[in-house]
Amino acid sequence: MKVRGRPTRTIWATGDTIEIIDQTELPHAFVIRSLRSLDDAARAIAVMRVRGAPLIGATAGYGVWLAMCEDASNEGLATACATLRATRPTAVNLHWAIEAMTAELAPLSPGERAHAARARADAIADEDVAINRAIGAATLTLIRRLRNGRSAAAPFNILTHCNAGWLATVDWGTALAGVYAAHDAGVPVHVWVDETRPRNQGAALTAWELGQHGVPHTVIVDNAGGHLMQQGKIDLVLVGTDRTTGAGDVVNKIGTYLKALAARDCDVPFYVAAPSPSIDWTVVEATREIAIEERPASEVTTISGCTESGAIMSVRLTPEGTQVFNPGFDVTPARLVTGIITERGIATASREGLARLYPIEAAIATRARPP
Amino acid sequence: MKVRGRPTRTIWATGDTIEIIDQTELPHAFVIRSLRSLDDAARAIAVMRVRGAPLIGATAGYGVWLAMCEDASNEGLATACATLRATRPTAVNLHWAIEAMTAELAPLSPGERAHAARARADAIADEDVAINRAIGAATLTLIRRLRNGRSAAAPFNILTHCNAGWLATVDWGTALAGVYAAHDAGVPVHVWVDETRPRNQGAALTAWELGQHGVPHTVIVDNAGGHLMQQGKIDLVLVGTDRTTGAGDVVNKIGTYLKALAARDCDVPFYVAAPSPSIDWTVVEATREIAIEERPASEVTTISGCTESGAIMSVRLTPEGTQVFNPGFDVTPARLVTGIITERGIATASREGLARLYPIEAAIATRARPP
Repeated sequence: MKVRGRPTRTIWATGDTIEIIDQTELPHAFVIRSLRSLDDAARAIAVMRVRGAPLIGATAGYGVWLAMCEDASNEGLATACATLRATRPTAVNLHWAIEAMTAELAPLSPGERAHAARARADAIADEDVAINRAIGAATLTLIRRLRNGRSAAAPFNILTHCNAGWLATVDWGTALAGVYAAHDAGVPVHVWVDETRPRNQGAALTAWELGQHGVPHTVIVDNAGGHLMQQGKIDLVLVGTDRTTGAGDVVNKIGTYLKALAARDCDVPFYVAAPSPSIDWTVVEATREIAIEERPASEVTTISGCTESGAIMSVRLTPEGTQVFNPGFDVTPARLVTGIITERGIATASREGLARLYPIEAAIATRARPP
Repeated sequence: MKVRGRPTRTIWATGDTIEIIDQTELPHAFVIRSLRSLDDAARAIAVMRVRGAPLIGATAGYGVWLAMCEDASNEGLATACATLRATRPTAVNLHWAIEAMTAELAPLSPGERAHAARARADAIADEDVAINRAIGAATLTLIRRLRNGRSAAAPFNILTHCNAGWLATVDWGTALAGVYAAHDAGVPVHVWVDETRPRNQGAALTAWELGQHGVPHTVIVDNAGGHLMQQGKIDLVLVGTDRTTGAGDVVNKIGTYLKALAARDCDVPFYVAAPSPSIDWTVVEATREIAIEERPASEVTTISGCTESGAIMSVRLTPEGTQVFNPGFDVTPARLVTGIITERGIATASREGLARLYPIEAAIATRARPP
């Protein structure tokens, strides 16, 4: 997507470095950083200069490449994988990318590994973009169908939660892929952006990337979405997912469940953009089986922003010593989900609906489950 | 309620001044300010050193008293009322208090007015405390009933939104009156405090006042309540109201509706503490008839807090120039409300339920409505 008018990805390789957008500086500064070593890549993931499951996966791939340029021995490969794996232990795509790199490189001689690593890492990044483009195309078809009968100029209002945009991926995003596809195709869209406390990915990242690409948008507090739906100001709720079960239950950023409830109460369609790598076919009962990550209290008690003089500063919001509980995700039950948008098209949020698009994965999962 | 161990009200009169807790300094500093004139009182309301409908009413009453000490002429009375009325044009209790003061003072000679004004203002403050005590007693009975069968030590978990505590009133609060009543009676309660973006009244004021009085509590982001209810961690949702219709529809701080939806979905009782002055018998259809106040974008784009060095500083959270929509309230339909707690007891959220407790008010409203 565009930054200052120029098409940009969140990560790209040069001759001997990786370049990333430092997302910890957004929205207040646009800083590109070079990663020159395995340790640079691992640190970028750990301190969240890159974040979003697909982008973490791509960064891990390139991190293995940087490692192979330094030490392509078996030991070097094992160290690279272990170092990257330790950065963010819960991200699914991280493990998937490391396994893909290992499967590619382990059979090769050390002399062949650096070249092969670069090619495989490039492929991981390109595959992510291809998946997101396909999700975008399916979402654009959906938007055109839902807009059917409206005047050409009437903006179509989409509410989104957190950042499932191109910053969370290599390009296009998941939930926002369809927004960019619609905007680029001349379909007038307007996005209501939940600020998404506590980390404010909506106010900081989604608002920034939509603004850079020129997509009309309005930031709201997370409390406001229900009222907007009651008032008929939202045509579609569109979110990403960290993990969606084979039965269509959706694990996503904390607060998603509340928006799904309001959408159901107000008859607003609620769709989830789920690239197939984020579908977990093994889980039977999401609210019981999926552990919800508890994150640090400091994410709630303090917040950082830009002072009038342009400095970035952190301030405390609560009384000193206040106790906090900070769950990172919640589960939106399949019964509240109108549809799941995958790179193979849109499924109903059910085992049957998803199995129609992914028959092999569903069959393997069914066979693996205890009777 | 207690501050640093001492019973304290939000406002009290001395020989010739009014003392208030400056709520713009909370939770980072506890500052008592003297109001010595009509202008002091008007400014305290306008800049929200005092806030919360009942407390605004009490402050207006005392503001008229301060005015009468300076100039008790008919002109002085008219000026006082006009000045106070202009501070926060939408607060219902403000108008109610000014009308009560005028009704008391207008028939008197200027020489009698200062003394009478002080007595009436004291009465307004004391009436507020009496109403809240009664709501607290009714809520305590409810809590005991809902706790029935549990072990004596098991904490009863209450979720609240915004600040409907003693800081919003003269003492006790509305939604929190029952929490204090339970705590003081030895019933173990624990409060989940929604931070309540954008103004963070929960994180700043509710957490502070519960902490000062020693009531166990935990701050959460507004996004987290649905997840907590799904996990069975909330026994009761208890909120205040800015205006409740005679049919039981509840206007309250933005985001209340989302919590009511989650409570319904998870079978958690959802109660509203509504002193009778906040019941609006004239409205027939809340979502159509009640205009929802749109508040400044700066409440969303910037936030103020305490730096490490103890300074209070405001920081910007969004990209520069981001468009914002900031509705202050939403409407929770009566169908989602389990009960309305008034100073006369608990009513079902319906015209019939409220009319049983307030037959005269309901009858007058019915007669006034067009057929």
